[in-house]
Amino acid sequence: MSALYKRCCLLSFLLVAVSINSLSKINADEGMWLFNDLPKDYLKSKHGFEPTDEWADKLMKSCVRFNVGGSASFISSNGLVLTNHHVAFDTLSKLSNDENNYAKDGFLAKSMDSELKAPDLELNQLQKITDVTDKVNESVTADMAPADAAKARRARIDEIQTAATDESGLRSDVVTLYGGGKYHLYQYKKYTDVRLVWAPEAGIAFFGGDADNFEYPRFNLDATIFRVYEDGMPAKIEHFLKWSENGPDENELVFVAGNPGRTSRIFTTDALKHQRDTRMPYILDFIRRREVLLQQFGLGGPEKERIAKDQLFGIQNSRKAYMGMLGGLQDPSVMATAEAAEQKLLEKVKSTPELQEYASAWDKIADVQKRKAEMQGQGVLISSRMFSIAQELVQMATEDQKPSSERLREFQDSGRDSLEQQLFSSAPIYPELQQAVLADEIARMCEIRGADDELCQKILAGKNPIDRASELIMGSKLGDPEVRRKVATGGIEAIKSSDDPLIKLALIVDDKVRADRKVSEELGEIEKQAYAQISKVLFAANGTSVYPDATFTLRLAFGPVTGYEEKGKSIPAFTDIDGTFAHEEGHAGQKDFDLPETWAAARGKIPGGTKMNFVCTADIIGGNSGSPVVNKDLELVGLIFDGNIQSLIADYAYTDKQGRSVSVHSNAIREALRYVYDAETLADQLGK
Amino acid sequence: MSALYKRCCLLSFLLVAVSINSLSKINADEGMWLFNDLPKDYLKSKHGFEPTDEWADKLMKSCVRFNVGGSASFISSNGLVLTNHHVAFDTLSKLSNDENNYAKDGFLAKSMDSELKAPDLELNQLQKITDVTDKVNESVTADMAPADAAKARRARIDEIQTAATDESGLRSDVVTLYGGGKYHLYQYKKYTDVRLVWAPEAGIAFFGGDADNFEYPRFNLDATIFRVYEDGMPAKIEHFLKWSENGPDENELVFVAGNPGRTSRIFTTDALKHQRDTRMPYILDFIRRREVLLQQFGLGGPEKERIAKDQLFGIQNSRKAYMGMLGGLQDPSVMATAEAAEQKLLEKVKSTPELQEYASAWDKIADVQKRKAEMQGQGVLISSRMFSIAQELVQMATEDQKPSSERLREFQDSGRDSLEQQLFSSAPIYPELQQAVLADEIARMCEIRGADDELCQKILAGKNPIDRASELIMGSKLGDPEVRRKVATGGIEAIKSSDDPLIKLALIVDDKVRADRKVSEELGEIEKQAYAQISKVLFAANGTSVYPDATFTLRLAFGPVTGYEEKGKSIPAFTDIDGTFAHEEGHAGQKDFDLPETWAAARGKIPGGTKMNFVCTADIIGGNSGSPVVNKDLELVGLIFDGNIQSLIADYAYTDKQGRSVSVHSNAIREALRYVYDAETLADQLGK
Repeated sequence: MSALYKRCCLLSFLLVAVSINSLSKINADEGMWLFNDLPKDYLKSKHGFEPTDEWADKLMKSCVRFNVGGSASFISSNGLVLTNHHVAFDTLSKLSNDENNYAKDGFLAKSMDSELKAPDLELNQLQKITDVTDKVNESVTADMAPADAAKARRARIDEIQTAATDESGLRSDVVTLYGGGKYHLYQYKKYTDVRLVWAPEAGIAFFGGDADNFEYPRFNLDATIFRVYEDGMPAKIEHFLKWSENGPDENELVFVAGNPGRTSRIFTTDALKHQRDTRMPYILDFIRRREVLLQQFGLGGPEKERIAKDQLFGIQNSRKAYMGMLGGLQDPSVMATAEAAEQKLLEKVKSTPELQEYASAWDKIADVQKRKAEMQGQGVLISSRMFSIAQELVQMATEDQKPSSERLREFQDSGRDSLEQQLFSSAPIYPELQQAVLADEIARMCEIRGADDELCQKILAGKNPIDRASELIMGSKLGDPEVRRKVATGGIEAIKSSDDPLIKLALIVDDKVRADRKVSEELGEIEKQAYAQISKVLFAANGTSVYPDATFTLRLAFGPVTGYEEKGKSIPAFTDIDGTFAHEEGHAGQKDFDLPETWAAARGKIPGGTKMNFVCTADIIGGNSGSPVVNKDLELVGLIFDGNIQSLIADYAYTDKQGRSVSVHSNAIREALRYVYDAETLADQLGK
Repeated sequence: MSALYKRCCLLSFLLVAVSINSLSKINADEGMWLFNDLPKDYLKSKHGFEPTDEWADKLMKSCVRFNVGGSASFISSNGLVLTNHHVAFDTLSKLSNDENNYAKDGFLAKSMDSELKAPDLELNQLQKITDVTDKVNESVTADMAPADAAKARRARIDEIQTAATDESGLRSDVVTLYGGGKYHLYQYKKYTDVRLVWAPEAGIAFFGGDADNFEYPRFNLDATIFRVYEDGMPAKIEHFLKWSENGPDENELVFVAGNPGRTSRIFTTDALKHQRDTRMPYILDFIRRREVLLQQFGLGGPEKERIAKDQLFGIQNSRKAYMGMLGGLQDPSVMATAEAAEQKLLEKVKSTPELQEYASAWDKIADVQKRKAEMQGQGVLISSRMFSIAQELVQMATEDQKPSSERLREFQDSGRDSLEQQLFSSAPIYPELQQAVLADEIARMCEIRGADDELCQKILAGKNPIDRASELIMGSKLGDPEVRRKVATGGIEAIKSSDDPLIKLALIVDDKVRADRKVSEELGEIEKQAYAQISKVLFAANGTSVYPDATFTLRLAFGPVTGYEEKGKSIPAFTDIDGTFAHEEGHAGQKDFDLPETWAAARGKIPGGTKMNFVCTADIIGGNSGSPVVNKDLELVGLIFDGNIQSLIADYAYTDKQGRSVSVHSNAIREALRYVYDAETLADQLGK
């Protein structure tokens, strides 16, 4: 598990000065760079390496995005895909049942026949990036109200996406960059037949558990291998990464290609304070609440524990990340740095005539924060899988009556396949867990709005939250994907005549949900326009060589493999297999520090000194989990799986003083396959 | 662990109709009765038993109150005291260290010499109850402002307590009953030399763990035995309970004598809604936050897990109890019942000329709820042991400059011994845990007030919460009780000249703390006066035979030993040793369901059919933990340790349809001492 999965993160107890709003100039090896705008000059002057367009194209096409939130790469001509165990965990859990707990105990397909098909994975391979900024902006005029502008922009984006999909057959997403300063069209080849080949035990993938999460030195084999299929056969892959013989040298420049989820380096101080005082405390209360709920649920026995584990892992990871992020923002010196940087920029705006029209951007953002604070927690808060399914079906039926470009974004034609892939997934849904979660969500909504609130009373329907949730889940048939498909096919009539209690509930709250969403999109549009203006100020102040905030699209980061100093101690760049066993012994009796039996049995067989993990200074964040780490020759040398505590301020700023990304060493994966898992055949395919 | 420790509790998923504001008439075997006002007529007519004054006096003096929050009884002439393991847990933890974990592994003193002295226990034995209502009320006139009235009342209470202590040498507490309708003086003999004699392993005391908490059937030996000493010798005890040979029969009437903590059966619906929508959600967020923090801390290794366990136990227990309580209040039918009952009472007030002057009481309470909601979370929130110590020292130094009757209540002369017993306790304080807790509390305060808040900035002193907490705890010497004693002796000068960072912090926040407390006491006084008026209405409406809400003072409850129906199944009144082993087997592989080795070894030795636990209908709540259950002949037949889920609405209402209090059977304790713990000598002393 790691900071780098889905959620962006930041930890903070750093005393190092960090550059906030440094979107500006390149600070050391900072940056999550666009593949169509790599910092070639910087790489050449600083590192003596100039990537060619062919180099970039080859790397781009060797990369894979996990739509559930993670990164990966092709590592063989016959479709093997390498990612983290914790990125795969959701799928591993869905493939597990009360007899085979692959998420915990691992899996190895002895032959291709026995590879296990994932119920709802969609993998994306980026093919092409096109700048469509002008096309998108043509649709918006200066005199449009924010809501109209947002609507016009959404419609135009859908047109572009649909046309591109129709023309190419590729998944086509328009991505908003620089907070609205640019729009690029990303086109992907999709793989939806994805099969599990190998996963190690959770005991080595997440060795050290929550206690070691975000720590370094580490000793984890946080890796899993899938294979993509086309037409029932292993896909033939043209672009894949070769496997490095020995991995990286110390101080060697390496590259990380992956999909960082979201950064907020452009945020104004008002936006940062909104995060600090309003949004993050709210999210953390929710996270802790869900964590406690899932743990309590898991006390009901080993099977319940297994069922709750996937969500619990993610929740605990997010909690640790958000707590760090919040701790950083609460540091008076961090905020003072941000305020000083902003003040400097504002002075530049005031003193530069052609920038003065943008001065109001900061105030607009401040106003939006106030509105957001008022709205927080006032919506329909029910975060539950079964309820979401009902809500999607209800909304889809209404939206499908409109032309694609006027629909809510997720129901537009261009994303329909991906939507249905999730909505009709055969992944198991466990009623008991659904009940516990829904009861707690109804209770939470009653707490925040007050139980006498009209909407709450409608939701409760005369019952307490636990009884009401039980009635809703037990009475619903939406757990069955075939029922969902049938309801979806039936359109608005099927919805109106449905007696499914969850669909009825979704109908009750639909007006409120839509009204809230409208306001929230309006506020988003105001922010988008304001940040686009601030981007222009930053371009003007610092030149064009800046990278945009992360958007869960492919980016290139880089930096040398190098250790750091901490509390007066030198932390080495690499760890090895001997350290792994020593780490187990040093934490005897501690939860999550027992290596799996396979590793105890292989002790002595794995060559001594085999490298396990390493750190480098590449600028990464949540979403980068599973990213390949490659050398200049595009050989795979590592697999990103975490950032250390000191790196986690990355949501707001980059630092390479102590901040490091943490990777599994390529040798560790190969030798583990050979000596621990008796998977010589698989090991032989790596990079071939 | 149990619902009955410290916190009062309520669970709720009950569909049974419950009587709210039923303070009124006796409903079945409802009631937590005053020992000086027992429901003799009811007992006689319903159960054919009339307790004599001697009977009541004997039972009263056989009871013991644990000031940390729990009940107990004398069970031998040589000072043996029986309570729950979970009441003793705080002391067991304080006596444990990294070598001997008595809290987990149990303890048996092989001889009196090896009994272990508790660092800060104070046990109270009630001697006398006197009605002092008139004396207290003389001090208050109708034209006084609430703040003045509260002050006058506090001063008079201190005078009464001090005079009573001076005269008798007993601990003397004036207790507010019927929300201010009556004041009684309770006088206790104190025991402060309390030694641990025997505790079983946590594995049997808390068998089934959090999963089984609030459940029935149960199989726990939630018991621990202490001995009180006087002048270094085992105390000679005149009033103690005999040990029943066989325990209670099914349907036999039994009595529970203990100290229920707090009930709120008099609450108006506005007050209930304040609990539901404002106070409980706030408390639960705090509880979950602390739970997650303590768990994360415990991941640092076995010793850290041990250190955090005591607080974690209490927190998890409270969470489950509060969640149930809240779930009950969120049930529309529960609130509707309360509203109907209140409406009826209000109609009575309007139609009865002599009651009309009290009609405004409900509005006053409603106003107070609004004020409380505004204040919630706006104070100095730092809930941390080390900070509390600093704060007590700072406040004590200021308060001691005033005459006793004008001081904040806890610093008055009459309670000084008990205050110092806690303040100078030699119980270990663990800096690492203190740091983690303090950092989180500072962060919490910043979240609620916003980190830019002036007071927060003063508290942070330029650092993030984690670094600041580290500086405060590492720089403070208050962990050493001798340092505390020295600072206390030095008075106000020692405080002013102290360079202890925690004392400095306590000084920074002192004005705010005092101002908040003043407002909160004012609001409390308004409520007190209003509830006193409502009590008068209830007396008028229902006659005088009513019991007051619980006040952590000795009360008598009663009811037959009897099972109940649940989900169509008959739940028997008793469980036995065979069920204990079956319960372990039925939950194989589940956390907290492994019996200790001693029990496995004793299997076959303990007589088959030995009763373990039983249920009865007695009306109990948090604070009753450890209460003796006795028969008409005042023989000990059981030891209260929990209430089942259905009983936990008791904070607001009593129900005997399914609600049951859960006890350890007296036989279980005796046979366990004999056959599991090889403690024949101790077993022979029971009841002798």
